[in-house]
Parts: sequence; C-alpha cells; structure tokens
Amino acid sequence: MEMTPIGMIHTPFTDPAGMPIQSAGAAGVSGTVEVFEEYQAGLKDLDGFSHIVLLYVFHRSDGFKLQVIPFMDTEPRGLFATRAPKRPNPIGLSIVQLDRVEGGTLHVQNVDMLDGTPLLDIKPYVPEFDSQAHIRTGWLEHARKAVGGRQSDDRFR
Amino acid sequence: MEMTPIGMIHTPFTDPAGMPIQSAGAAGVSGTVEVFEEYQAGLKDLDGFSHIVLLYVFHRSDGFKLQVIPFMDTEPRGLFATRAPKRPNPIGLSIVQLDRVEGGTLHVQNVDMLDGTPLLDIKPYVPEFDSQAHIRTGWLEHARKAVGGRQSDDRFR
Repeated sequence: MEMTPIGMIHTPFTDPAGMPIQSAGAAGVSGTVEVFEEYQAGLKDLDGFSHIVLLYVFHRSDGFKLQVIPFMDTEPRGLFATRAPKRPNPIGLSIVQLDRVEGGTLHVQNVDMLDGTPLLDIKPYVPEFDSQAHIRTGWLEHARKAVGGRQSDDRFR
Repeated sequence: MEMTPIGMIHTPFTDPAGMPIQSAGAAGVSGTVEVFEEYQAGLKDLDGFSHIVLLYVFHRSDGFKLQVIPFMDTEPRGLFATRAPKRPNPIGLSIVQLDRVEGGTLHVQNVDMLDGTPLLDIKPYVPEFDSQAHIRTGWLEHARKAVGGRQSDDRFR
C-alpha cells in the first residue's frame, strides 16, 4: 500500500528528545499545517471545526520493536498498548486545536510532532465518533494524568 | 511511503451500502480483529484498555474527490471536513470497545468497517490524548446527534 504526503507540519520541535508527550502535554504550543496546493480544495468547510485529527508519518522513526518501555513507565509494554513512534506502520495520530485557515495553511495549537512531519490525512474531530466514556486505560491508568508535565527523552531517536 | 497490513478486521458488513455511519452508529455490533502472527507479541498489555483506536485501509475505495456530499448532508463539503472514505491516503480511523484478547484475536464492539478490512495500526485510546472539550463541529453541528440512526448508501461504493 503506497501512501503519499498531502502536506507538511511545522512545529517548534527539531529534536525527538525534549518534546511534549502527546498533544495533551503540548497545550498552547502553536504550529502550522501546510497543505500542498493540489489538495487545498478539500479544506472547504474545515474552518467550522474547533479540533481536527491529524494523521502523519513518524518520519524520524526507523524500524520497530514489539515491546517497548514507554516514556511514562519503567516496564516493557506491548507496542500496540503504547503510542510509541517505532511501529510496523509508523502512522502518528494527534488531535489539535484549529485556530484558523488561511489558504492552504492551518494555524493550529497543541502540536506534539516534529517540525517537517509529512501529513497523510486531516479529519474533522467529532465527539460522537471520537470521544468515549467509561474508559479503562490499563498500565497508563496512574501515569496518564501526569502527562502534561512530562517530556520525551531520546529512547525513540 | 509503503504501508503493510498487520492484520485483518472481520465484521458483519460485506457491502458498503447499508452500513452504520461511524462507530457511534454501530453500538453493540460485534467484530474481531485478527493480528498476524509476527505482530502478536505487540498485543501484550492491550487487554487493560477498554477502548482502542484502529487505523485501517478503506480497501474498497478507489481514488478521491476533494469535495463530497457526506451521508449526513445535502451540500458538497471539503473532503477534509468529512470522514468520507475516498481520500488521497485512504486511511480509516475508528474507536472500538475492546471486550477481550484471545491470542492474536481481539473481540471488539462498535465496528463500522467492511469485513476483510486491512489493519494498519492499533493504539490505546487515552482520554487525555484523544478526548477534547469545548468543541465546534461546523456543518456537522446539527446532523451529528442523529448519526446513530443513519446508515450509509452506495455513494462511496
């Protein structure tokens, strides 16, 4: 299956170490999403949405391991029970706040990806589809509330 | 960018028409996710999570249009302001309920994809990362609360 970037994400982060862990830890960090010209007609109506889902490539991740020690833990966990970037298909998923659309440029907040990240898709964030109640989160149960204060180190560089 | 299926999703749906629109309209519909043997070690710890994010290929969608009339509307909308399946990179995203893990098989509920859908990735659903408050949803604002009662037709076949 062949995927083609439809744009590029620009953020303040140029090094995989020292980044926020997930957009929840990136509150207020501004970035832009540049959508290539041939896809810009698809942005119509997007400005009505306050939040969007970005799918992108973890372009600095090479290969994968099926068990990893996540940033918020000290024990090896199954890869698919983590959001670690080294995955068989290295697709990243972040929900960001959409402040405004200017031509092919989306001004967004809460960016947690590297500068120059290739964009694969944009979807509108819709609570009825994307938000769930009555949740259990396994090994993350205790760690996740602290995510705002944590930063990545270089383990996935 | 080359993507490789890591498994296959099994659901009751064999025809793109007459399906639930999004997992919100598929409450209680059961399916299974079969993870191929070489990736099964990555499933460790996943059973602690009540909900998971599935990324998959819209394998029956050919090509794309940058403006579409969505199932829940009568006007053409920008593709990226919709969840329509014909996209430049035809990646689908659904959040499903994880009931149990048996070897390489995940028993899930709220499936809204076609039987035989190729799986690209599994991520744990974590409210701090994935759930947003204070939301605007543009053209979907009035339609989205009715999504549970709607089914697809054949417009994206």
